[in-house]
Amino acid sequence: MSAKVVDAADVAAPFVAELKQKIAALKGPVPVLVGFLANDDKAARKYAEWTAKTCAATGVRFELRECQRTELEDKIIEANEDDNVHGIMVYYPVFNGSQDQYIQNTVSYKKDVEGLCHKYVYNMYHNIRFLDEAQTQKCIIPCTPLAILKILEYVGVYNPILPYGRRLHGRVITVINRSEHVGRPLAALLANDGAKVYSVDENGTMEFHRGEGLKFEKHVEVESATTLTEALPQSDVVITGVPARSYRVPTSQLKEGVIAINFSGSKNFEEEELKQKASIFVPSVGKVTVAMLERNLMRLHEYLEKDKEARSSNSGKETSA
Amino acid sequence: MSAKVVDAADVAAPFVAELKQKIAALKGPVPVLVGFLANDDKAARKYAEWTAKTCAATGVRFELRECQRTELEDKIIEANEDDNVHGIMVYYPVFNGSQDQYIQNTVSYKKDVEGLCHKYVYNMYHNIRFLDEAQTQKCIIPCTPLAILKILEYVGVYNPILPYGRRLHGRVITVINRSEHVGRPLAALLANDGAKVYSVDENGTMEFHRGEGLKFEKHVEVESATTLTEALPQSDVVITGVPARSYRVPTSQLKEGVIAINFSGSKNFEEEELKQKASIFVPSVGKVTVAMLERNLMRLHEYLEKDKEARSSNSGKETSA
Repeated sequence: MSAKVVDAADVAAPFVAELKQKIAALKGPVPVLVGFLANDDKAARKYAEWTAKTCAATGVRFELRECQRTELEDKIIEANEDDNVHGIMVYYPVFNGSQDQYIQNTVSYKKDVEGLCHKYVYNMYHNIRFLDEAQTQKCIIPCTPLAILKILEYVGVYNPILPYGRRLHGRVITVINRSEHVGRPLAALLANDGAKVYSVDENGTMEFHRGEGLKFEKHVEVESATTLTEALPQSDVVITGVPARSYRVPTSQLKEGVIAINFSGSKNFEEEELKQKASIFVPSVGKVTVAMLERNLMRLHEYLEKDKEARSSNSGKETSA
Repeated sequence: MSAKVVDAADVAAPFVAELKQKIAALKGPVPVLVGFLANDDKAARKYAEWTAKTCAATGVRFELRECQRTELEDKIIEANEDDNVHGIMVYYPVFNGSQDQYIQNTVSYKKDVEGLCHKYVYNMYHNIRFLDEAQTQKCIIPCTPLAILKILEYVGVYNPILPYGRRLHGRVITVINRSEHVGRPLAALLANDGAKVYSVDENGTMEFHRGEGLKFEKHVEVESATTLTEALPQSDVVITGVPARSYRVPTSQLKEGVIAINFSGSKNFEEEELKQKASIFVPSVGKVTVAMLERNLMRLHEYLEKDKEARSSNSGKETSA
C-alpha cells in the first residue's frame, strides 16, 4: 500500500473555477493585483510566475513590479494610495527578518491580500472574524495557513459531522515551523477549530488548543515539554515547513497512516519511505496558496469598489448641493 | 592623552532633574509605568531594576509585572484598557524575533513609551513628527536611539551654530547594528539631522543620508559597497551595539580622536587601547535610555489625562442634557 499523493492543483481547481466565474460576471473594474519583487531569490521569482499564471487563468490583472529593495517602501505607499490597485503582495525575503516585518506593516490593510499586517494577524490570533461591528467585512487570513486548512478539508481531516468551529476535535497535529508568517498562525487556526497542536521549532515546543473563553473562544498557547520525537508518533497529521535543504522528518517516528503535508520550498520528507507509511501525502501547497491569494483579493476588491462608489456618490451630492 | 570617558549618568542628570520637577508640580495623578518581565534574561532584569530606581528618583509610579511569556499578550491588552496606566514597556527578548515584533505591536500606541509599535516607527522613518494634523501631539521616538542622540548633543557632535535639522551636516557616523529596534532607526534619525551614516551589520552596509524631498525631507537609504574596514577610518563617530561577547571593533581602523559609543550589553571596544586613540568614549547608554523612557511617559501621560478629562466633561454634558 502506497500513500495517496495529492496534487495541490486538484485542491485549487474548484477555487480557481469559482474565481473565474465570479470575475467573468463582474460589471465594474477587474481586480488588479500588484506584486513587488525586490530580490534575486529564485523561489520568489517562481512564486511570482505562478501568481501571474493563475491570475491569467482566472481573469485577475496581475502586475509584477520589480524594484530595488531600497525603493520598495515608497513603491508600496504609492500602490496603497492608487485607487486602481486592489491588492498588494511582496515576494519575501527582502531584507532581514525584522525589516521585512516592518515592510509587511507598510502595506495598507485595505490591500493586504497576504493578510500579514498586524491588524489581520492580531484579529486572527484573537479569533475576530470581521473588520467591522456590523460584520459586513470579513478579515483576511494569511494565504499559506488558509491554503493548508483548505487542503485539510480536501483530504478529510475536517469532520463535517461535527459543528462548525469544532471540526478538528480529536485530531492531533504537529506543525514543524513556528514563524509568524505561517507556522504560528496555522497552529492557532487549527486550535481554533478544535485540534490539539504541537508547534515545534528549534527553540522547542508550544502546545495550542481550543480556548474556553466566552468572548472570542480564542486558542490557548502553552509551553510544552513534548519533544518532536514524542509528538510525531501521536500525530494524525504532520505539517512541515523547514526552510533547510538538509532537513528531513524522521519517517520511523511517524504514525502508520499519517497525513503528511510539506509547505517548505525544500523536501522535508524522505518521500519514497514516507509513501510506504503515510495514508496521504501532499508534497506542496503553493497552487492552493495562490488561489487563496486571489480569493482574498476578491474580498478586498469588493470592499474597495463599494468604498469608491460611496465616495463618488457622496461627492456627487456635494456638487449638486 | 587619554579619552574623556563620559558617564551616561551625567548625560541623564539634567533630564532626571527636569522630570522630578515636572512630576512634583503635577496636580492630577502621577504617571504610572507598567513594565512586563516575561523571561529569565539577566540583562532584562537589570534593566527592570534600573527602571524602578530611576522611577523612584523622579516620582513615577513603576509597577513591574512578572508573568509567563504565554500570558504576556493578554496582560498587555489588560494594561492597554486600564485608564490608570500611562505607559507600558516590555523587557525583551521574550520569544523569537518575529513573535516579539508581533508583541510590540500589541502595545497600544497611546501607551507605547518605547516607541516600538509600527505607527511610531513608520512616522519616525518618514520624519512625521506629530500624531495629529493640528500638531498638538508629538510622536514617540524609540528610547535607545533617542538616548544616543542626546548623548551626541552632550558630547558636542551636534553643532548648534547650524540650523535645526542640519546640525550633523558634515559628520560621518558609523553605526554597527541595523536592528529595527535600535540600529536602523538611529541611522535614519542621524541622517534626518544631516549626517552621512554607514549602517553596518553582518549582511553588509547601507548608507543613510538626508533626503531632498520637499514634503517630509525624510532620510534616504541606499545600498553601499563600503566595508566596515573602509567606513571606520572615515568616521568621526562610531556607535556600536553588537550583542556578542566576543565582538570587538578593531581599534587600529578607527580615526584618531574618534568619538566612540557602545550601546551593546557587552563591551564592543578594546577599552584600554581605545582610550589611547579616541577623544571621547561613552561605554554605556542605559541610564539615558531610562530617562528618555520617562520623558516619553510624561508625554503619553499628558495626552491620556487630557483625553480622560475630555471624556469625563463630555459624559457630564450628556448627564446634564
